[in-house]
Amino acid sequence: MVKKIMNEPQNIVDEMLEGFVFAHPELQWFREHRVVSLKEKKKGKVGVMSVGGSGHEPAHAGYIGKGMLDAAVAGNLFASPSPDQMLKAIEDIDTGAGVLVVLKNYSGDLMNFSIAKELAEAQGISVESVVVKDDVAVPDSTYSTGRRGIAGTVFVHKIAGARAAEGADLTQVKRSAQKAADNVRSMGMSMSACILPGLDKPGFSLGEDEIEIGMGIHGEPGIQKSGVKTADELAEILLEKIMEDLDYRSCEAALMINGLGGTPLMELYVLAASVKKLLVQKEICACRVYVGNYMTSLEMAGCSLSMLKLDDELKRLLQAPCASPAMTLQ
Amino acid sequence: MVKKIMNEPQNIVDEMLEGFVFAHPELQWFREHRVVSLKEKKKGKVGVMSVGGSGHEPAHAGYIGKGMLDAAVAGNLFASPSPDQMLKAIEDIDTGAGVLVVLKNYSGDLMNFSIAKELAEAQGISVESVVVKDDVAVPDSTYSTGRRGIAGTVFVHKIAGARAAEGADLTQVKRSAQKAADNVRSMGMSMSACILPGLDKPGFSLGEDEIEIGMGIHGEPGIQKSGVKTADELAEILLEKIMEDLDYRSCEAALMINGLGGTPLMELYVLAASVKKLLVQKEICACRVYVGNYMTSLEMAGCSLSMLKLDDELKRLLQAPCASPAMTLQ
Repeated sequence: MVKKIMNEPQNIVDEMLEGFVFAHPELQWFREHRVVSLKEKKKGKVGVMSVGGSGHEPAHAGYIGKGMLDAAVAGNLFASPSPDQMLKAIEDIDTGAGVLVVLKNYSGDLMNFSIAKELAEAQGISVESVVVKDDVAVPDSTYSTGRRGIAGTVFVHKIAGARAAEGADLTQVKRSAQKAADNVRSMGMSMSACILPGLDKPGFSLGEDEIEIGMGIHGEPGIQKSGVKTADELAEILLEKIMEDLDYRSCEAALMINGLGGTPLMELYVLAASVKKLLVQKEICACRVYVGNYMTSLEMAGCSLSMLKLDDELKRLLQAPCASPAMTLQ
Repeated sequence: MVKKIMNEPQNIVDEMLEGFVFAHPELQWFREHRVVSLKEKKKGKVGVMSVGGSGHEPAHAGYIGKGMLDAAVAGNLFASPSPDQMLKAIEDIDTGAGVLVVLKNYSGDLMNFSIAKELAEAQGISVESVVVKDDVAVPDSTYSTGRRGIAGTVFVHKIAGARAAEGADLTQVKRSAQKAADNVRSMGMSMSACILPGLDKPGFSLGEDEIEIGMGIHGEPGIQKSGVKTADELAEILLEKIMEDLDYRSCEAALMINGLGGTPLMELYVLAASVKKLLVQKEICACRVYVGNYMTSLEMAGCSLSMLKLDDELKRLLQAPCASPAMTLQ
């Protein structure tokens, strides 16, 4: 018997969205399409949206708000939303200036988006996209050709949303979002599996004293199973892999210590302290640090580390005000 | 082997606080006393602070910020901070207008506070307190004479902080905070135990298909063990117990669906949808709904429901702007 707070497993996504708009009355949802969007649209602003499977809450609807996303489309658990759903969101948020869709690099999302884009363009709506591939763990994975998109995507939401809020056009918003995607790297680790609602057991398992470095947010294989590590060791492993891939030395960066859902905030802050020591050594200035559950895998225990390398533009956009359920900046 | 992201268990609280102020540079901490406080003090404003054991993150330091707390004192895991620690915080945040301390009704916190208050008053600092006893589950408990204080305390932080930010004096801040404490009720349930860092096993256990209604945030006994319930059933059980105790009919209320740390946000939103249906039936208007991990028990799975009955004053204070790591309102 799996203990979850739910009614019928097949209704869990709809009931979640129902609860979500109840808690956030500035948002609305289109039931049939599982599209959540900001009620208030700003005429002439580029629309920014995100799509993806459910089970990663607060992603993606938690990032809807002024200065961030205008809409999010929820797929089934760990499954891509359909072209039809994506089209509905595009239609809803386009106010004439076009729509930027932030995608994570999963084959289903990309395929369905390409159809939605075609359908929207046939209606005269300009649609662009940015594909986030921040996870440095593995070159290809179960559901992706090329690197996976994980928590670093939240930075791309923030940058794209802030640029659109400044009144930039679709080309400019896409350029800034692409720059964020190009400059963010992430690396994660998992300590336990999660169980999809409706199933009796997890899709994989880890030994009692085993962790997996580099596991994906749907339980995709990582690079190495190992014994339990200290926070200091973990910080070193995760950061090293990130820094092998992009040169952050003597740079400013934004840092995210993301929890996968089942790890207490206390442990994430402990990891933050470990990362801090390493950044000081490496002369990297973390000018903004996010610690919390930003992109989860249901109740999976574990974390990921994301770093966005900043230039003046990205720094300005990162620090611009925003107001969404999962990220507010004054 | 317990899998936690930590170094030495005995350092976990200090390392957490180190990471906390790294992520929130507007805050400072006094290492020796494990006091976290706002760097910027407003001369003449009543200081508002909270005290309590660690393991309930983001409580308590997560509520420090403009319009909320000025300081928080962290005890060891699930253990009360000392009088000395509390005194340090009182001294730090008093700017001449006195200090209100928000306490949860645990004997250790109360006893240590009474000593700290005496020491502070000997220095000429005015100190008042409000004791929160929102948990309607049991009349007395392991660590408390009278009802326990749980997640509803966050509402008291908000109300007291907002009243102090308005420039009210200590008597007025205490009166508003007391009104909030008098009008908030909570009721929780747990689905799994948590393990204290450094220990090998939990302090209690639940069967594979067993939950405990009314369990406290340190694993104190509840009122009933039962089989797994649906979200709709849980909403009914929790809400009924709350409404037996205070008459919310035809009132406005603020609602909090609090996760205990190990329960995915998805499930909390599902519960929110179940609660919504009941509130509509009962003609209670939830004018603000909080869903998330506000006062946790490490990685415990489960939740609590809190409802604050509002009058015009409480509503105004609840909706006043605030900016803390765990609650921001624009």
